[in-house]
Amino acid sequence: MTGWIAVAGLGPGDEALVTPEVTQALAEATDVVGYGPYVARVAPRDGLVLHPSDNRVELERAAMALDLAAQGRRVLVASSGDPGVFAMAAAVFEALEDGPAHWRELDIRVLPGITAMLAAAARAGAPLGHDFCAINLSDNLKPWSVIEKRLRLAAEADFAMAFYNPRSRARPEGFAKALAVLREACGDDRLILFARAVSTPEEALRIVPLGEARAEMADMRTMVIVGSSRTRIIERPGAPILYTPRSVPEDAS
Amino acid sequence: MTGWIAVAGLGPGDEALVTPEVTQALAEATDVVGYGPYVARVAPRDGLVLHPSDNRVELERAAMALDLAAQGRRVLVASSGDPGVFAMAAAVFEALEDGPAHWRELDIRVLPGITAMLAAAARAGAPLGHDFCAINLSDNLKPWSVIEKRLRLAAEADFAMAFYNPRSRARPEGFAKALAVLREACGDDRLILFARAVSTPEEALRIVPLGEARAEMADMRTMVIVGSSRTRIIERPGAPILYTPRSVPEDAS
Repeated sequence: MTGWIAVAGLGPGDEALVTPEVTQALAEATDVVGYGPYVARVAPRDGLVLHPSDNRVELERAAMALDLAAQGRRVLVASSGDPGVFAMAAAVFEALEDGPAHWRELDIRVLPGITAMLAAAARAGAPLGHDFCAINLSDNLKPWSVIEKRLRLAAEADFAMAFYNPRSRARPEGFAKALAVLREACGDDRLILFARAVSTPEEALRIVPLGEARAEMADMRTMVIVGSSRTRIIERPGAPILYTPRSVPEDAS
Repeated sequence: MTGWIAVAGLGPGDEALVTPEVTQALAEATDVVGYGPYVARVAPRDGLVLHPSDNRVELERAAMALDLAAQGRRVLVASSGDPGVFAMAAAVFEALEDGPAHWRELDIRVLPGITAMLAAAARAGAPLGHDFCAINLSDNLKPWSVIEKRLRLAAEADFAMAFYNPRSRARPEGFAKALAVLREACGDDRLILFARAVSTPEEALRIVPLGEARAEMADMRTMVIVGSSRTRIIERPGAPILYTPRSVPEDAS
């Protein structure tokens, strides 16, 4: 048996958002490695070994996956969303770079998926319809000063901003600080979307101006998108539409 | 018949990257509206009317789709990639906002897809594995001064940068100007990825330092990704891996 490793994105939750490429790789895999809740999304079958692991052990998990592949197993590393956006792909390559030389000969693929910001944006309308940035608000792996600097520069660039990991039990105060920086940089009227558990039965969307945003509106399952200065709402029967027009006027610079 | 409109992302080209949600919507649609090459990706069948249109007529196309849905048709607006990222979703909402009031009562959905930057990043490794931004380099809908300002601020923020529409026949000089700004702001050693026609038979990837990048390395089918200061290459047998580690050191701010 020739081993391989496929770092695959399972999308935001709904099976209808899993690509056929990922479904095929799951059908061919002998092992699935990943954070417990993501591995739990894979249907068990004969010949498939599931290896759920805890959160925050990404490098150990990546090394285990690489080692299994080196033994000839066909290993799928399960990420939610897209594996290349604040997920397992970078962790696998960090482990690869620091690992034994023979790992570099492995067949390694990254299989893209629907990342949370695109699913959330689609549900709300098109808030990322113009230039935007994506920032991981967790300060586990970078200092808060870097996050704050990036928020201020993104506001100055007038990017829409998508925030991953806005809030966790381990860092309850970080998101409140981020909201304060954003209010100062973008003003109280700037629109912000809280999109929780998009594409699952618990999905809930809320759009408010920054002046009314509270840290408690986000939890670990919430994707947050702050609009640019051009982002607007279309009111209509039912849920409003949040979108960013494609154009910037000539006098905007 | 109750009409609806689904603005759907067909992904970068490979059918294995089309979500089941989009495949289902295509099966239920009576009409497909879109730019000719994207409509050409939809298999004809009895009862399905294809409406291919030219490039750069997004608002007219959007208005036609909304009007068909208002007549009770089930209309799929075909985008490549993800419809919310420099594609048709924002155009549909612009047309909706300026159109007749009864359009606001329509059943409108946006169906996400694998956008080009995620497909390109996956093929190369994980260059978007840390904070990043996405910028449309076309100056059709915004002044060049805004693009240049955003490039400089993104470099200062040390974002990886994904560029859509880097180069077209109508704007041959814009991308060369962007490369000059990036060399000045990021230095000649910064890594840049040219990913052409990802997931199609014409796929071709090339990674060079900015100092060796030339505007001719991109065309209309090329996705360009410039790494952050932390983006690196892992050499190995076959294609190298381009990735951005998840962490920023404590002294980086």
